[in-house]
Amino acid sequence: MTKIPHRLYLTEDQMPKQWYNLRADMKELPDPMLNPADFRPVKEEDLYPIFCKELAHQEMDNETRYVDIPEEIQDFYKMYRPSPLIRAYNLEKALDTPARIYYKFEGNNTSGSHKLNSAIAQAYYAKKQGLTSLTTETGAGQWGTALAEACSYYGIPLTVYMVKCSYEQKPFRKAVIQTFDGEIIPSPSTTTNAGRAILEKGPHTTGSLGCAISEAVEKAVTTEGCRYVLGSVLNQVLLHQSIIGLESKTAMELLDEYPDIVIGCAGGGSNLGGLIAPFMQDKLTGKASPRIVAVEPASCPSLTRGRYAYDFCDTGKVTPLARMYTLGCGFIPSANHAGGLRYHGMSPILSKLYHDGYMEAVAVEQTKVFEAAVFFAKQETILPAPESSHAIRAAIDEAVKCRETGEAKTILFGLTGTGYFDMNAYSSYLDGTMKDYIPTDEDLEKAFAELPKIPGIQ
Amino acid sequence: MTKIPHRLYLTEDQMPKQWYNLRADMKELPDPMLNPADFRPVKEEDLYPIFCKELAHQEMDNETRYVDIPEEIQDFYKMYRPSPLIRAYNLEKALDTPARIYYKFEGNNTSGSHKLNSAIAQAYYAKKQGLTSLTTETGAGQWGTALAEACSYYGIPLTVYMVKCSYEQKPFRKAVIQTFDGEIIPSPSTTTNAGRAILEKGPHTTGSLGCAISEAVEKAVTTEGCRYVLGSVLNQVLLHQSIIGLESKTAMELLDEYPDIVIGCAGGGSNLGGLIAPFMQDKLTGKASPRIVAVEPASCPSLTRGRYAYDFCDTGKVTPLARMYTLGCGFIPSANHAGGLRYHGMSPILSKLYHDGYMEAVAVEQTKVFEAAVFFAKQETILPAPESSHAIRAAIDEAVKCRETGEAKTILFGLTGTGYFDMNAYSSYLDGTMKDYIPTDEDLEKAFAELPKIPGIQ
Repeated sequence: MTKIPHRLYLTEDQMPKQWYNLRADMKELPDPMLNPADFRPVKEEDLYPIFCKELAHQEMDNETRYVDIPEEIQDFYKMYRPSPLIRAYNLEKALDTPARIYYKFEGNNTSGSHKLNSAIAQAYYAKKQGLTSLTTETGAGQWGTALAEACSYYGIPLTVYMVKCSYEQKPFRKAVIQTFDGEIIPSPSTTTNAGRAILEKGPHTTGSLGCAISEAVEKAVTTEGCRYVLGSVLNQVLLHQSIIGLESKTAMELLDEYPDIVIGCAGGGSNLGGLIAPFMQDKLTGKASPRIVAVEPASCPSLTRGRYAYDFCDTGKVTPLARMYTLGCGFIPSANHAGGLRYHGMSPILSKLYHDGYMEAVAVEQTKVFEAAVFFAKQETILPAPESSHAIRAAIDEAVKCRETGEAKTILFGLTGTGYFDMNAYSSYLDGTMKDYIPTDEDLEKAFAELPKIPGIQ
Repeated sequence: MTKIPHRLYLTEDQMPKQWYNLRADMKELPDPMLNPADFRPVKEEDLYPIFCKELAHQEMDNETRYVDIPEEIQDFYKMYRPSPLIRAYNLEKALDTPARIYYKFEGNNTSGSHKLNSAIAQAYYAKKQGLTSLTTETGAGQWGTALAEACSYYGIPLTVYMVKCSYEQKPFRKAVIQTFDGEIIPSPSTTTNAGRAILEKGPHTTGSLGCAISEAVEKAVTTEGCRYVLGSVLNQVLLHQSIIGLESKTAMELLDEYPDIVIGCAGGGSNLGGLIAPFMQDKLTGKASPRIVAVEPASCPSLTRGRYAYDFCDTGKVTPLARMYTLGCGFIPSANHAGGLRYHGMSPILSKLYHDGYMEAVAVEQTKVFEAAVFFAKQETILPAPESSHAIRAAIDEAVKCRETGEAKTILFGLTGTGYFDMNAYSSYLDGTMKDYIPTDEDLEKAFAELPKIPGIQ
């Protein structure tokens, strides 16, 4: 048998030319989004004021199994993709495990994460529709960076509402976004009604993704030629991110491998949904039955401790209602360093799959996550993002179980990004000042009490 | 003809198994290093107190054309190499140039640069010799990060003397080095005689590479089982870095391409020497005659305005004397943001080749460099390091010349690293506060006056 290389890069010919839409193979679809005014299901046209048309279509399209990737987007992908599938030989050795560990590394681009995969698609469709500006929010800053790159490429002005605590913690992220001509506003801000309302309730709030979303949506719907784009949670984003899983599966086939366990970190679900897509397809269609594991922070445990309920996607309650695992749109997570995993909800697609038993979920504490991150960095020479390190933690735990049972399982995890802009977090882990935050049951009950009341539904 | 892919990665089988030693093909060798005490040529054994034995041997070996890369180092290389050879399609389009532009991108590893190529080699030989600790200096922090990664991999304690201005400007670099267990001391420090002497002369100095070298060397020679390692300038480093050029040449051969112009930034010369090695071999042996261009900052113009003379490699005057292009070991460059290009001298190999007419050199001002960096980032989605952006500047200038003359030249440049830790510099460019620094002739004359007097030689 040929030795499996450390890194496998597909050739351009082997790269996917279509995205895969998980919904086409789901036995039961996610419940429809509801209009918060009348609780009626949202129609595609209802989304046109918020999203550009093609993206609104992708959001609602539960039928089309494979969507052609426009050639312009394929060309952009070729600038930084394929991302490598890496065999973690050194990690395996250090763990003394019989498991074979693979990871798909999405961090080798300037946005530092997988977010560019959807950013370029959303900017492309906006340009095609002739839109003149876009708004978005960003937490850790990876999405904002990715979208700024994409908008700069297409010459579309972009306003980024950045969660205030990240804005302050990560000045260098700001600078990268500005390098790509993005305008950044710390959120909550006084530039929107939503922001002003939140500031009035709590002038010292450090912000949240939900709150930044409210501001970005408000700005989009009140500005001519402007639309809103989002880097996670949405069906369209999972569609674009399926390129991660499709590339991974092709690469594993070339190595004659198939994962027993697929692991991804889960904030809004974009990376996890993309990575698992073709493997979940196998599971849904009975071709294979890999375990699929979502890993979330114990400080923001939407899957493991949230409710499966209709909720707003934002804190300011301006978006449609989605049925998903949620901690309540008023839930403000503690200052965990994984800024990308601070969202109160979870992709409706993933929520439904989890609810129906196709996926597992675990919650991990951040000191354990950083322990895994540092260990991984020393073995594999890649400094991982705090978000990605949640997946590393779970992968290491599974590999250690294999050592104990002697099973040579094949583990695939998503390494979504690099931690270069998270060095404050690393420093706080290294100097021992990092804390773990776990919401109490009372905290959660209080947030659940705010879930919208929908006659006849919840 | 097959379309040339955006990114070409060699397979593991295609990766070089030997480094190439330029000296074996030079018509005239660089002048020997001299002992500063008696001005006699240094012998291999004289270097044993400073360098580990195998590296001292490599330093002095002018004969062996190809040096086997130990299998352990090849295995480590496979964790982050091969680096891609990228066709800059978008940059070409934006410049409307008939030139074909390629770049070899060395930034896709956690050290953020090509420095890891030599760091892992030096740590390996130190481990093999049973050394118990290492010291080094770092300017921008890329070398320190790379060596910390390598030392952590082999479990060798490392002390890094970091140029004080970088230590203060780049706290995140520190944190990365600490993540890999490196101890960091801002230089000049009170931990060495050299540091104390420099502080006495100027208590507010922001330091220099030359000064940090003095401290690291002193610490190494006064500590049992400890040796010093250096990330540039030395012959051994150029040997290890030849992997950049060897991979590039193989990749270009697969594309049926050969560069008319090879461009690299030049600080101490490690990247430039590595990138050009096999192309310079062709030039030395009459097989081809590519133009080879070194690009240096106008603030530290060792090749374009320095003297070809014997000088100390450090500010504290503890190292052997090397004949090289130098600004004088007392020259402290102004606070240019390309921390990796602040060295007073230049690799003796490159100095000799330049002196003998095999290479050209240009000096560029930093605002022009950052202008090129931002332009490049927007076209190619990679945020380049300030050092690397010197090469980008020159490549763009050459491509623009091609537009004017209509010549479809093939340009290859080295993109040594990423700029994630240089966002202060980007911010200062973007907000218009960045200045250009050009030493006056008087500044240089003053520094030249300090060149060592060597009876019968200079």
